[in-house]
Amino acid sequence: MLNKTMVNHDLMKNSNTLTVFECIRDNGPISKKDIQKLTNLSWGSISNNTNTLMKRNLITDIKISDDSIGRNPCVYDVNPEENLLIGLDVNIIGITGIIVDLKSRTKFKIYELIKNLEQTSVIQQAKEVIYRLIAMVDDKSKIKGIGVAFPGHVDAEKGVSLFLHQFAGYKTINIKQLLETEFKIQVMIDHDPNCMALTEMLLGKAKNINNMIFIRLSLGIGMSIVIDRKIYRGFTGAAGELGHTIMDPNGYKCSCGNYGCLETCSSTDAILKMAREGLSLGLCTVLKALLISNHELNLDTIIKAYNLGDDYIKNIIQKASGYMGIAITNMVNVFDPQLIVIGGEMAAYEDEIISKIRETVNQKVWKHSNVEIVASEFSNDAAAIGAASMLIHSVYAARMKELI
Amino acid sequence: MLNKTMVNHDLMKNSNTLTVFECIRDNGPISKKDIQKLTNLSWGSISNNTNTLMKRNLITDIKISDDSIGRNPCVYDVNPEENLLIGLDVNIIGITGIIVDLKSRTKFKIYELIKNLEQTSVIQQAKEVIYRLIAMVDDKSKIKGIGVAFPGHVDAEKGVSLFLHQFAGYKTINIKQLLETEFKIQVMIDHDPNCMALTEMLLGKAKNINNMIFIRLSLGIGMSIVIDRKIYRGFTGAAGELGHTIMDPNGYKCSCGNYGCLETCSSTDAILKMAREGLSLGLCTVLKALLISNHELNLDTIIKAYNLGDDYIKNIIQKASGYMGIAITNMVNVFDPQLIVIGGEMAAYEDEIISKIRETVNQKVWKHSNVEIVASEFSNDAAAIGAASMLIHSVYAARMKELI
Repeated sequence: MLNKTMVNHDLMKNSNTLTVFECIRDNGPISKKDIQKLTNLSWGSISNNTNTLMKRNLITDIKISDDSIGRNPCVYDVNPEENLLIGLDVNIIGITGIIVDLKSRTKFKIYELIKNLEQTSVIQQAKEVIYRLIAMVDDKSKIKGIGVAFPGHVDAEKGVSLFLHQFAGYKTINIKQLLETEFKIQVMIDHDPNCMALTEMLLGKAKNINNMIFIRLSLGIGMSIVIDRKIYRGFTGAAGELGHTIMDPNGYKCSCGNYGCLETCSSTDAILKMAREGLSLGLCTVLKALLISNHELNLDTIIKAYNLGDDYIKNIIQKASGYMGIAITNMVNVFDPQLIVIGGEMAAYEDEIISKIRETVNQKVWKHSNVEIVASEFSNDAAAIGAASMLIHSVYAARMKELI
Repeated sequence: MLNKTMVNHDLMKNSNTLTVFECIRDNGPISKKDIQKLTNLSWGSISNNTNTLMKRNLITDIKISDDSIGRNPCVYDVNPEENLLIGLDVNIIGITGIIVDLKSRTKFKIYELIKNLEQTSVIQQAKEVIYRLIAMVDDKSKIKGIGVAFPGHVDAEKGVSLFLHQFAGYKTINIKQLLETEFKIQVMIDHDPNCMALTEMLLGKAKNINNMIFIRLSLGIGMSIVIDRKIYRGFTGAAGELGHTIMDPNGYKCSCGNYGCLETCSSTDAILKMAREGLSLGLCTVLKALLISNHELNLDTIIKAYNLGDDYIKNIIQKASGYMGIAITNMVNVFDPQLIVIGGEMAAYEDEIISKIRETVNQKVWKHSNVEIVASEFSNDAAAIGAASMLIHSVYAARMKELI
């Protein structure tokens, strides 16, 4: 059987517009000649597309006096003042709301703890965050779209959150439709690790990388797989469930029903659970002292106890990092990526966690891999920045009616 | 950064030739009109390409009397008589040599046990198998190329076998160059599971499947990942090392140096090792009786003992299938494929092994997957058939100078 993709001319036209836009966004200020060098598009196509982008106020031309540059002595750059995008990172702890410009630079930011894990309450809170963000902008018409990073199982194409066991009274919900009805602008949603991977591709460690795996190490564990700078989604859109790969069939019961999933070995949730067990057995003496002196029981306090020499906590962190190292080794052995970026809460602990993971992988990985493992520099805002940036990135071209 | 692939016009021309060829191979006898319907190529391009293919004797036209079919009252089909391809499956047990026609139908076949695991001896034996195959063909000029399926770590693009710890005195060797010098025809090589996956795409369970994982369950365990009907190779070409994903860090030592790799849990090698342990402890009574009555110690005899009620063997098979089921569950959770095909020696034992793997996966997999798990029907010849077929398949287009 042939497997030939039909060419959709509207999509192709839009795709060239996107190519020119991305060239200007990533390299601007840039001359038409240099756009041509980088895109291989015809002079006519570049002119048409820069005109389209100018009309939509997405780019500006800056006249320059040096006319050696060509027929149009001007350079182009994106128009950051006139175009803003809203990004939301909704997770079971809190909501980060962010406004970025066309270069994905943060302009405004809100963070709120989740008030109530009941699903309708979470959605209501997300809407309120968006209203508060909009209120921060003088001219509302500058806001061109909303992107949402969502946990659980997401149908990114339809904009639907399919399943999320942590939210109470969960029902499948079309978030795209719901927010488009409410705010009358384009909405896109995606699984949170995919949004974080996009931030790395735009601004972070994966700027020039084609094949990468991004791993969010937080309360849960998520993964985004980038192949040829596209997000790999699998046949039903459920690829990347690293957190539910089984590491130890005799391990703890996982929220998904299985035993010994990676999330039960290496997530913040697992570490907190093991620490609580230690406390109940009277074994984490240093941690206990910290809690008595008014520290909260969270990852930060646990790492403090680790650095103060709590042996039981040391064991826990070593065990969690060890399993994570093995899980990443397995991913390197099957995907053979160029780069692994670790984001989320744990990315902040280079010496205590990341370096231990790196050590395990370097020791165990199939000998021909030289994969690099780095921590993200965007741990808290990466998902929201990426969510906003979906609206202007070729990774999401197939879902754009037109470029914002 | 833009990531734009430059268009190579020679390659594109060749790629259209290949498209027309594959359309005829898979659908022939077929009219020009139907080729157009299936390929979306222009009438002129189809004429040029059918002419090219006719000149190269790769296809024939069959005049038909019904002229309602169009301007050229003829249909095309591949020319199976004039074109033959040699395929070799070299592994640590034996060498399968095969000759196929342009529809990948087996014409001649040889199987030999490996005489000596010393590398130069294996290569010499492979050459001799090729000479014997050539001697079976009346007109040698009909043989258009040689494809080789090779275990270990293979650089398929360069045709190099990089590493293979089972062969004694191993050195990196350019098999493509070596065989092209010897036989003066085009040679391609690839990792054996990739060749087997190709056979499934051409003739087997994956004919109409875009995303699939093929797993070879034999003495070792190999995997081929098919995404959008292309073989996914990873950044350094080492993707798919399922056999060396770590299942049990406290398990047996693996040939790769790690502990508890899947190969130490679920390969035929692992099963034989566990059976030998049982025998030395006097525990596999049924198996022991079979060995005394002149059965060899191999997988077939072990399955016989299993079916005759050997409890110790039952445990071994359950353990091996259980780990394999977990490993496949993990692959489904990260790749979310449409289909899993299991090939190799174990594919023959539907009730004893395959159904047990299927049961574990169905029970443990992330709930949104409906992945199908099937056994290959080509277990012994799949690698050799696929190896021969590399020379005429678009998966390998980038490495063809021109279509055979």
